[in-house]
Amino acid sequence: MSEAYFQRFEDIQPKEIFPGYLARLIHTPNNTINFLDVEAGGPVALHHHPHHQCSFVLEGSFEMTVGDETQVLTPGTFALIPSNVPHGGRALTKCRILDIFSPVREDYK
Amino acid sequence: MSEAYFQRFEDIQPKEIFPGYLARLIHTPNNTINFLDVEAGGPVALHHHPHHQCSFVLEGSFEMTVGDETQVLTPGTFALIPSNVPHGGRALTKCRILDIFSPVREDYK
Repeated sequence: MSEAYFQRFEDIQPKEIFPGYLARLIHTPNNTINFLDVEAGGPVALHHHPHHQCSFVLEGSFEMTVGDETQVLTPGTFALIPSNVPHGGRALTKCRILDIFSPVREDYK
Repeated sequence: MSEAYFQRFEDIQPKEIFPGYLARLIHTPNNTINFLDVEAGGPVALHHHPHHQCSFVLEGSFEMTVGDETQVLTPGTFALIPSNVPHGGRALTKCRILDIFSPVREDYK
């Protein structure tokens, strides 16, 4: 991606990072910002990574597990996932999700 | 804000950071994430800060200037603002904006 100040989502090549999870990834110096379009039912198994993660459900409902806690996330709620804490979940409906990782997800480049 | 995994936007005390700009701020170890409700017409004078900033217009239209470039941001576009580059703008309509800063905005705590 160029370093232009202004960018368009349509210029980002989508990437299927899990089955049913279409990612549009933006890498900045210190973060990876991921706008995800998720199909209903799509489960993500518990996994973990050293990156801190914040997850926002912009549209839809997503049942998320973080550590030993499970909640249904909607646009009124969000999750803060510390480094290396296992997390996963499933889309109760079609969702639009925003994940913010720190530092950059080099594995998504 | 507590360190609970799951949080609610309604538990965040809104803060008017510029006239007509109502911020809901989330501070993580490395970022400040700001969900802004902006009134139509609200101008922000050119300013700069050492933090890298990404700006997404989730709803509405916002005319933004970064350096010597000006564009109207809508949900299909976004801005990447490097450290110390002057930026500002005005809301052409009522807007919902997401700003992601790195590192944390200690001045917003």
